[in-house]
Amino acid sequence: MVTNKSQHISQQFETELQDIRSRVLAMGGLVEQQVASALKALKKADLELARQVIAEDHHINEIEMSIDEECIQIIALRQPTAGDLRLVSVILKTITDLERIGDEANSIARKALNLADRDHPKKSYRELSTIGNHVRGMLRDALDAFARLDVEAALAVAREDQEVDEEYESFTRTMITYMMEDPRTISRVLDLMWSARALERIGDHARNLCEYVIYLVEGKDVRHLSIEHIEKVLQRDGDD
Amino acid sequence: MVTNKSQHISQQFETELQDIRSRVLAMGGLVEQQVASALKALKKADLELARQVIAEDHHINEIEMSIDEECIQIIALRQPTAGDLRLVSVILKTITDLERIGDEANSIARKALNLADRDHPKKSYRELSTIGNHVRGMLRDALDAFARLDVEAALAVAREDQEVDEEYESFTRTMITYMMEDPRTISRVLDLMWSARALERIGDHARNLCEYVIYLVEGKDVRHLSIEHIEKVLQRDGDD
Repeated sequence: MVTNKSQHISQQFETELQDIRSRVLAMGGLVEQQVASALKALKKADLELARQVIAEDHHINEIEMSIDEECIQIIALRQPTAGDLRLVSVILKTITDLERIGDEANSIARKALNLADRDHPKKSYRELSTIGNHVRGMLRDALDAFARLDVEAALAVAREDQEVDEEYESFTRTMITYMMEDPRTISRVLDLMWSARALERIGDHARNLCEYVIYLVEGKDVRHLSIEHIEKVLQRDGDD
Repeated sequence: MVTNKSQHISQQFETELQDIRSRVLAMGGLVEQQVASALKALKKADLELARQVIAEDHHINEIEMSIDEECIQIIALRQPTAGDLRLVSVILKTITDLERIGDEANSIARKALNLADRDHPKKSYRELSTIGNHVRGMLRDALDAFARLDVEAALAVAREDQEVDEEYESFTRTMITYMMEDPRTISRVLDLMWSARALERIGDHARNLCEYVIYLVEGKDVRHLSIEHIEKVLQRDGDD
């Protein structure tokens, strides 16, 4: 179904698509770094690092707008169809989620600023780090799945999102207990809860990225489905 | 720059674009209704209504995926350029934000279920309603701005987002005071805070919708800019 123009244009187009995929992966790497730095700033009460994360968010927004613009240009000039069009549409969605992960990192960094001059309830930071490391792993694996167009890896990440949700619920319950035991900690504990919430959202976005990979490879839109349902859809190959 | 095929195909295409715009507006109306119902369920402790909102979210997700699919079809078959392509790309973004507003309404409805069998601190519900009504107004005006391609109306909504942010901050401060005064209310007050947070996010999404309208009409990508900066960009017409 793909309209072939000259071989030359086709190769040039192929290069453009490769280039834009690399840019998405680079953006993903930067966003991943932002999440890591925001968590480190929170843990180490590192004001300087928190401010860097906040300043860098601007850069991520610019990258998103630039890749977005490039995708629209590609659609206008190359008029992609079938798989190529699917790739471009997936990239448009992917960068939206990456940008929003950047926003969540930014929001964690802001909480780090609030928390820097206060006492550190060690245990809660440790639990937050556990969620943080989990979510960072999901994000990295989601980007790898995109790079390698690996549906199995994408599915594995989507499965992990449930675990993160459970860790988040458990963290929230612990925090409520802290607040009830010592109401003077409320404001500080809320900042930790917002940070955990931001991490939980990053997990959701990582899951979205994986759903796009599945759509790209399998041509099946599995958004808003449960993991069990997705697995079922993927086994019924050729059924749509 | 637009490649004209036959008059007939061009008219058919025009009808398709009109049709998809109407579908986006209908989706917007439904999402608006979800937000209104979720707030009502919260205020009136209406379990049945809360459950309806949660059940209906599925429907919104389906509409999003269906319009998304239709946009990709249009790109593949009609190969739109210039203004038509811009419209399609704006619709793709708009439905993502509308779907996420639906998610926030869903999340408010879940809090309404939690809160239904507990005491009602009247004052906090009243303040939450104020933010809720404000945000619903923004959403309605954003959809109107999209329907009428009205940049001035879009700008007005974007300006209001700042007010909502302030109302949200003030609400949060009040809630922290409540929790400190009576730690037994913590868990209940947190549900109200999460609901307020969901409303604040809906305001952000309404602002996003307005930025897409500005892009559609003016061809300028004003995402991530301050209101002052957007106003400056729009006055410097022809400067990019």
